[in-house]
Amino acid sequence: MLELVFTPDRGHVEPVYRQLGDYIRGLVAAERLPRGSKLPATRELATSLGLSRNTVSQAYEDLVADGVLTAHVGQGTFVAGSPRATAAAGARVSDAGGGSPAAAEDARHGFVWSGLFALRARTLTLPAGFGAERRTRPLRFDFRGGQVALDVLPVSDLRRAFADAAGAELARLADHQSPFGIGSLRREIARYLVSRGITCEAGDVLVVNGAQQAIDLTARVLLDPGDSVVIEQPGYFGARLAFTACQANLVPVAVDGDGLRTDELARVLRARRVKLIYTTPAAQSPTGAVMSEARRRLLLALADEHQSPILEDDYDSELRYEGPPVAALKTGDGAGQVIYVGTFSKVLFPGLRVGYVVAAPPLLEKMALARWNADVTTSVVTQAALARLLATGGLGRHLRRVRAAYAERLRAMLAALADAMPPATEWTRPRGGHSIWVTLPAEVDGPALLQAALDASIRFTPGEVFCGDGRGDRHLALSFANHTPAAIAEGVGRLGELVRAQLPSARRRRHQ
Amino acid sequence: MLELVFTPDRGHVEPVYRQLGDYIRGLVAAERLPRGSKLPATRELATSLGLSRNTVSQAYEDLVADGVLTAHVGQGTFVAGSPRATAAAGARVSDAGGGSPAAAEDARHGFVWSGLFALRARTLTLPAGFGAERRTRPLRFDFRGGQVALDVLPVSDLRRAFADAAGAELARLADHQSPFGIGSLRREIARYLVSRGITCEAGDVLVVNGAQQAIDLTARVLLDPGDSVVIEQPGYFGARLAFTACQANLVPVAVDGDGLRTDELARVLRARRVKLIYTTPAAQSPTGAVMSEARRRLLLALADEHQSPILEDDYDSELRYEGPPVAALKTGDGAGQVIYVGTFSKVLFPGLRVGYVVAAPPLLEKMALARWNADVTTSVVTQAALARLLATGGLGRHLRRVRAAYAERLRAMLAALADAMPPATEWTRPRGGHSIWVTLPAEVDGPALLQAALDASIRFTPGEVFCGDGRGDRHLALSFANHTPAAIAEGVGRLGELVRAQLPSARRRRHQ
Repeated sequence: MLELVFTPDRGHVEPVYRQLGDYIRGLVAAERLPRGSKLPATRELATSLGLSRNTVSQAYEDLVADGVLTAHVGQGTFVAGSPRATAAAGARVSDAGGGSPAAAEDARHGFVWSGLFALRARTLTLPAGFGAERRTRPLRFDFRGGQVALDVLPVSDLRRAFADAAGAELARLADHQSPFGIGSLRREIARYLVSRGITCEAGDVLVVNGAQQAIDLTARVLLDPGDSVVIEQPGYFGARLAFTACQANLVPVAVDGDGLRTDELARVLRARRVKLIYTTPAAQSPTGAVMSEARRRLLLALADEHQSPILEDDYDSELRYEGPPVAALKTGDGAGQVIYVGTFSKVLFPGLRVGYVVAAPPLLEKMALARWNADVTTSVVTQAALARLLATGGLGRHLRRVRAAYAERLRAMLAALADAMPPATEWTRPRGGHSIWVTLPAEVDGPALLQAALDASIRFTPGEVFCGDGRGDRHLALSFANHTPAAIAEGVGRLGELVRAQLPSARRRRHQ
Repeated sequence: MLELVFTPDRGHVEPVYRQLGDYIRGLVAAERLPRGSKLPATRELATSLGLSRNTVSQAYEDLVADGVLTAHVGQGTFVAGSPRATAAAGARVSDAGGGSPAAAEDARHGFVWSGLFALRARTLTLPAGFGAERRTRPLRFDFRGGQVALDVLPVSDLRRAFADAAGAELARLADHQSPFGIGSLRREIARYLVSRGITCEAGDVLVVNGAQQAIDLTARVLLDPGDSVVIEQPGYFGARLAFTACQANLVPVAVDGDGLRTDELARVLRARRVKLIYTTPAAQSPTGAVMSEARRRLLLALADEHQSPILEDDYDSELRYEGPPVAALKTGDGAGQVIYVGTFSKVLFPGLRVGYVVAAPPLLEKMALARWNADVTTSVVTQAALARLLATGGLGRHLRRVRAAYAERLRAMLAALADAMPPATEWTRPRGGHSIWVTLPAEVDGPALLQAALDASIRFTPGEVFCGDGRGDRHLALSFANHTPAAIAEGVGRLGELVRAQLPSARRRRHQ
C-alpha cells in the first residue's frame, strides 16, 4: 500500500492531528488510498511519522466520525469511501474551514495543482471565520472582530463623496497609476496625522489597501526567507499570516498590561539578528493594552542599538473613549526607523480598504515599487472619495459620533461581563478600540465553547486566532462594535451561561 | 565607546562579514559611532561577538575601501566620516547596489535602510514613466500605454453606480472581508464571461485589483525562487516585474505575427521544468498579434504534456474593431490548467483597479488565501458599483461606444504612420486593443528619439520597456486611445519628423 509521508507543521495554528487528518482525507479523495484499503495501525504510523500515538488516534477517530474511514474491531482501520463518500469527505474538509478540498477538486479537474504550489504557499491559511462563509449564516450575536457600527455609518456623506469622485473628478483621476496614491489624499492624510503627533508631508505618505497591505509590503521589502521578525504574543493574526507567507522566522514576545515586554525583547535582540519588530503600541491587538512611556523609550532605544526597524501598527488609535489620546511611537522616532501604519477601516468600515504608511524615504520608495508590482495602486475613486471626506470634515464628524457610540457599547459589555461571567473569568478593561480580551476559567474547553456558542447563534473570535501556539483556547475576543447595548447585554448574558455550563456545578455561580 | 552588539544571522544568504559591515555602517551613519572613534581590534571584536577573526577583518577591509573607516598602521581602525564623508560613504553603498538615492536619504534620516532590504527587493524597479512623475508634466501628445479614452467615459452611469454602492448598499457590504470578492460582482463577472466563451459560475471567480494583482498572486502561489517562468518576448512588463520580484527565473520565448512561438516553447519545455507559462493570446502585449488556432492547440497540448499551468492574460480582448471576436484560450482548457485573467481597467479606466481570475478550485482557493494575506479584498464600494454597472447594462453600452471611438482612432493612427514615417519603418496593424508596435529603421537611436520627442511634448512607451534585454531600443509602442483622430495625425506627423531627423539625409523621405 501507499506509504504515508506526512510531515507536521508544528508552528501552524491547525493542530497536528487535524493536519494529519486533512492529509489522509486528501489521499482518499484523490483515490490514492483506494476504497477498502487498510491503514497502518496507530502505533506503527506514529512511529514511522515521529508523532505521538494519541495524535494519530485522534486523526483516525475524526475520519471515522466523518465517514472517511471505518474501524473494525480486531481487524483495523479501512478507507470507507465509495466515490460518493469521497466527494462528501472532500466537502467536509472545506466546511471545517481549515484545509482545502484541493485533492478532491484535482481529481475532478484532471490537472493536479497540489504538487505545484510554492513552498511558501503550502502553509497559507486564514483564521476561522474569515473565508467566503463569513456572511453565509447570519448570527444573532456576532461578537467577532473586524466589524464596525453599521448603524452609525456616515452614509449620506459617503454617498456624496463617492458620487463626486466618480463624477466630476473622474477624468482627472482615471488614468492615475502612481503607486504612492493620489496627491489630494496624501495631503489630507498628512494633515490628519498631526492629530497623532506625527509631522509629515504628503510626500512621506504611501496610500495602501488597508493595514494588511502595509504589513505585507513591509514584509516583501525587508524579509528574506528565514529572517527573524518579532511579533506580539498574543498578537494580530494578519501580521503573523503575512510574515509566515514570506517564510520569515516568527519570534513571539509576550505582552502584558503595559504592552510588549521590552525585557523579553532585549533578550531576543541579544540572542539573534532581528529584521523587524512588529508592534501595536496604542492599543495592543488583542488585549488593548497601551504601551507605557517607559517601554516606549526602551523599545526605541533597543531598536536603535540593534538597528532593527519597528513596524508600528496604529490601527485603532483614533478610537479612545476616555483619558488623553495616546501618542504614536513614531513621534519619538528621531532616526526614522519606525514604519508607521494607519488605516481607515476601523473608523469607517473594513470593506473600504484604505490605509497608509509613513516611513523614511528610502523605505517608502521601495515599498512603492513593491506596491506597483503587487497591484499598482488603490482604487482611485475610493481614494478621491476619502480625500473629500477628510477635506470636508466628514471624517471628523463621524469620529465624534462613533466614539460616543462605542464608549456606550464598551461600558455595556464590561457591565454584561461582570454580570454574566463565573468567577475566575478575567477580561481587559480597554479605554478604546473595538473589543475585549477574555480569559476563561481553566476548566473551560475553548473549542467546545465555540461550538456551543455557534449553536446558540453567538459568535466570537477564538483566542487561538491571536496566539497560534495552542495556548489561545483559554481566551476569546469579544467585539462590542456592532451591537446595541441591549443586544450586548443579552448576548453576553447567554455566553456567560454557556461558560458556566462547562464548569463543575459548584463553580457555576456568577462573577462576584 | 559604544559596545558592538551585532548578532549574525547564519541562515541568511548574505555572508556574515557583509551583515557585520552593514551593521557598522548603520552605526556610523546614525553617528552612534562618532567620527574619529576607534574600533575594537579585529581579534577582540571577533572574540566578543563569537565570530572568526577573518570575518571581522573582511568587514573592516570593505568599510575601509568604502571610506567609512580608516586604518592607521600600528594604531588601529577608526571611523573616518565627517558628517559629509559619512553621507558619501552611504551614497557609495547605494551606487554599488544599483539604483536609488537610498543611502543619501539614509544619511539625512539617521537610520540606514539600504543594508536591510530583502534580496528580492533589491532589484525592484518600475518602467520609465510609471512613477509619481507620470502626471506632473502635461504633454501635448501623450501616446504612452495605460491610458483610455477619457472623453468617452460613462461618467453619469459611474456616478450613479458609485453613489448607490456607497449609499443604499453600504450597510450590507461594509464589513465584507471575503478574499473572493462580493457575491453580486462574482455573479455578474461569470455572466459577462459567457461573451468570451467561458462557462463558469460565480464560485469560480476571484475578484482582484486588476490584472497586475492576478499575476502577482499567481506568482506568490506557484513560484519559489529559481522556478522557471516562460514569458513572451517582447511582452508585458508588469508580468516580468512581478515574476522577477518573486525571484523566478524568466525564460523569454519569442513572438511573431501568430503570437507566442510554440516551436521555441517546445524546446524550452523539453530542456527544463517550467512552473508557469505566461501569455496574452487574444492580443499579444505589445504587438497585438492574435494567437493562431494551430498554436493554441499546440500550446495547450504542450502545457498538458509537461504539466505546466498557463496564465492567460486576456487584458484587452473586449476591444476588437473588426473580424470575429477571438475566443479565450480558456475555452479549450479541458484539464483546468489555464488560469484566466481579465480586467476592467482597459475597457473602463486603469484607476478602477478591478480584475478577476477564473481558475480550477484548488488554485483559486490558494490564491484567495494569498489575497487575504496581501490586502484582504478589493474595495467593496468599487466592487458593488461595478456589479451594478454590469447588471444594468451600463458596461455593454460603454463597450459599444468605446469600440467605435477606438476603431476610428486606430484607423487615424495607421494612416498617420503611413503618411509620416520614413521607409524601413514597420508597424503592426492590430484589429483591436489600444496601441501599435513600431519598429524603427536601424539607424535611429531609440533613447535619443525619446528625448527629442519629450522636448517636442510628445511621449510614447519605449520598446525597451517590453523587452528588458537591451534589444527594445528599435521599438516603440504608440497608444491611440486618448487622442482624437486630428491630434493623432498631428502628433504622429511630428514624431515622424523626429524619426526622419535621425536618418542620413538621403533616407529622410516619407514612407512610400
